[in-house]
Amino acid sequence: MAKEVTSKDENYSLWYNNLVVKADLAENSAVRGCMVIKPYGYAIWEKMQAALDRMFKETGHKNAYFPLFIPKSFLSREAEHVEGFAKECAVVTHHRLMTNPDGPGVVVDPSARLEEELIVRPTSETIIWNTYKNWIKSYRDLPILCNQWANVVRWEMRTRLFLRTAEFLWQEGHTAHATREEAIEECERMINVYAKFAREYMSLPVIVGRKTESERFAGAIDTLCIEAMMQDGKALQAGTSHFLGQNFAKAFGVQYASREGSLEYVWATSWGVSTRLMGALIMAHSDDHGLVLPPKLAPIHVVMVPIFKTDDERKAIIEKMNSLKTEIEAQGFTVEIDDRDNLRSGFKFAEWELKGVPVRIAIGPRDLQNGTVELARRDTLQKESVGSEGIGTYVRDLLDDIQKNIYRKAYDFRESRVCKVDTYDEFKRKIEEGCFVLAHWDGTSETEARIQEETKATIRCIPIDTYPDNGKGSCIYSGKPSSGRVVFAKAY
Amino acid sequence: MAKEVTSKDENYSLWYNNLVVKADLAENSAVRGCMVIKPYGYAIWEKMQAALDRMFKETGHKNAYFPLFIPKSFLSREAEHVEGFAKECAVVTHHRLMTNPDGPGVVVDPSARLEEELIVRPTSETIIWNTYKNWIKSYRDLPILCNQWANVVRWEMRTRLFLRTAEFLWQEGHTAHATREEAIEECERMINVYAKFAREYMSLPVIVGRKTESERFAGAIDTLCIEAMMQDGKALQAGTSHFLGQNFAKAFGVQYASREGSLEYVWATSWGVSTRLMGALIMAHSDDHGLVLPPKLAPIHVVMVPIFKTDDERKAIIEKMNSLKTEIEAQGFTVEIDDRDNLRSGFKFAEWELKGVPVRIAIGPRDLQNGTVELARRDTLQKESVGSEGIGTYVRDLLDDIQKNIYRKAYDFRESRVCKVDTYDEFKRKIEEGCFVLAHWDGTSETEARIQEETKATIRCIPIDTYPDNGKGSCIYSGKPSSGRVVFAKAY
Repeated sequence: MAKEVTSKDENYSLWYNNLVVKADLAENSAVRGCMVIKPYGYAIWEKMQAALDRMFKETGHKNAYFPLFIPKSFLSREAEHVEGFAKECAVVTHHRLMTNPDGPGVVVDPSARLEEELIVRPTSETIIWNTYKNWIKSYRDLPILCNQWANVVRWEMRTRLFLRTAEFLWQEGHTAHATREEAIEECERMINVYAKFAREYMSLPVIVGRKTESERFAGAIDTLCIEAMMQDGKALQAGTSHFLGQNFAKAFGVQYASREGSLEYVWATSWGVSTRLMGALIMAHSDDHGLVLPPKLAPIHVVMVPIFKTDDERKAIIEKMNSLKTEIEAQGFTVEIDDRDNLRSGFKFAEWELKGVPVRIAIGPRDLQNGTVELARRDTLQKESVGSEGIGTYVRDLLDDIQKNIYRKAYDFRESRVCKVDTYDEFKRKIEEGCFVLAHWDGTSETEARIQEETKATIRCIPIDTYPDNGKGSCIYSGKPSSGRVVFAKAY
Repeated sequence: MAKEVTSKDENYSLWYNNLVVKADLAENSAVRGCMVIKPYGYAIWEKMQAALDRMFKETGHKNAYFPLFIPKSFLSREAEHVEGFAKECAVVTHHRLMTNPDGPGVVVDPSARLEEELIVRPTSETIIWNTYKNWIKSYRDLPILCNQWANVVRWEMRTRLFLRTAEFLWQEGHTAHATREEAIEECERMINVYAKFAREYMSLPVIVGRKTESERFAGAIDTLCIEAMMQDGKALQAGTSHFLGQNFAKAFGVQYASREGSLEYVWATSWGVSTRLMGALIMAHSDDHGLVLPPKLAPIHVVMVPIFKTDDERKAIIEKMNSLKTEIEAQGFTVEIDDRDNLRSGFKFAEWELKGVPVRIAIGPRDLQNGTVELARRDTLQKESVGSEGIGTYVRDLLDDIQKNIYRKAYDFRESRVCKVDTYDEFKRKIEEGCFVLAHWDGTSETEARIQEETKATIRCIPIDTYPDNGKGSCIYSGKPSSGRVVFAKAY
């Protein structure tokens, strides 16, 4: 192989970074912490966006766009929000450069200082609720169901491609409702949209759950989340949906006249997923050969590699490939014929495996004679010889099977790493082994913090739709009463 | 009408602003110069994006994403580029806020000053060519055909919704080629993609042309553009495509090994359109009743308004509407039934006219009896009674006709305002009347500047595909020889 990938077992972190860079998904840029998303990586993100955007619209949401900049004072309006987001962020202080009077290049023009500094949005609750104030007068203006696709900036000190970058791409939904019940329902609806997307498109078996108080979004009353297990047994939070209560409505003075004529504060939710999902996708399914992409998010579904010695053979094989390509594309899939003349087929095989293309079709002169093709699936690396007749439906069914198999594999992996534990000793051992540990907890932030200090494990969520357990028990740490098991794990 | 719009003839500028705000397209935000794009406005932008994105992909381009921030020093690398873009821009100087030690709120943490200031991208040539440096080694890596959809910031002093805002949304294509000829071909291909999009989707009869030296993009060898006439006779530049020569390759040291083994600098293009297109769309077609949207960009194609007195009538009409809706939607169009119970139908008619929905269908009890509907088209405001049988294909054909009619109307308007002029006196008169003036020019920047000073008219372009005129003549200003007529106009 031309591009060697570090083995997953040898160095998981390096393996991940190798994949991202060598499969041409993303790379670090000249700007600290900011990444370049390369065309192949961006094509996957576009597929994610398209599926999510469709699901948002089906649930009644509309896209809009709010400013990149937030006046500094807005951040302070909501007391908890400022604690969470006003720390590490990009601050715009000036609006002009000028020719350097003392040498080459340009310098900041000291006379162009802004009256109030602007923050590059780390999240948009404040600027959006300041806007909603003007949109909402009466109950007839509600609900407002907006989403925006945008870039945000959080000045992270330790960055990793896709998982934690200073700038990242995301969507943020911001909804306004007349009642508490309706906002809670929306919050739940959207975490379920995320769960469905993760399971059906990303082949990612996520757990839907609720964050503990200390892990909540800054300014939220309740945070729901989806949590996924990576192949090192660590958890990755893949999406969150927040019930914000009336916190932002009160901070920005957003009230509506109810049907009965009284003036009420508006109820809010916000929810988001980001390019972090790319990290989850890569980490959950890939192997030492490279990416393993679920067909529904693969930019290329089938790659065809011709095997030939003579020019005549090449010509006949490419002709055959073009006709098979048409048949497969008619099923709605994307096919690429790798006709590069300067590379051996072994090199090509390795490269497309690295890039995670779900199905590879190779055709040699013998195949041409026999009316067969050699078909290799990326998820299992199995090869088979099949007749080229009816290739379109064959590939369609195969891709469907691959999509399900990738999910099943990730599901089985997680199941093999989930355990119920009732003593702190076993807890520590299982956390060290890289497990999701279902354990009783006394419900206090103190215990949660102690456990994290001692084991680096955090409460990923109080599970709702997977491993729900409301049986009473005793906290593994304090021995105090617990009203159900929660999911502990080390996390990204 | 509930929301009155200032008449176009009375105050064109106020009329425009009224439309943007009252039709719920966009509004000013709390951040100076930054707009909020509201859901209805964003839905139009999404339709523009979808059509353009498809056309980019059909011509072989792939999307990618590059950082929001540009190191200050990058801007100085290309001599002309820094002149054009390093003036008014948002400068990030710090990466942290802290609790105000002297009072409430947060302040910039003076210890978190960046070593090198970051500029919020006003355009991305520099950061992208710095990246391409690592992507390009040999002729086999070329061409690179990337596009990005992104936000950019230029600190404009006088802003107008969509036309000139501090932050705006756009796409920027950045391509790298082995030869000069290939880059020039790409530059021409993309201006033609823009022209096709403007004409076929926006119903906008644009002129494809070449910018004079003084109007060129900062850092370009050649800038091609599409120019459209607004209803006040002013020109609006709707898109540009730049041949950048080897300027950025040289500034960032991007060379490739040719097939013959020599080391060559790479050739570049860049091209972009922005949310400014929204301004062009609104200004080109709307009237005193509101927006007039070409069907291909309308978020809602057909609105249905029930006319009734009794509850039974209402029920029967809505039932009928639902069945017609299904028929029309089967043709691929979007239909909305305006069933709001608190508004008169006259108010609804006015509101949907304001929003520019191409077709309105009203059904009353008599229509129900007769099997007819009242159909009103937004472009001509004509009404007709038609049978509800076969409504799907009828509406399809009607929308097609509306799309063409809007183009024809804008085309005829422009033709009525274009004139060839051979004396400077007539030139000044025609410019004052709001015309596109085709006149001879001596080819010098001095004459161009003088004319602009005296008349506010600029050379919009040296026309290529519309009004091309390579006949020799004498400059209207200097009397010196001219090699063809150029398009003069006042511009946005």
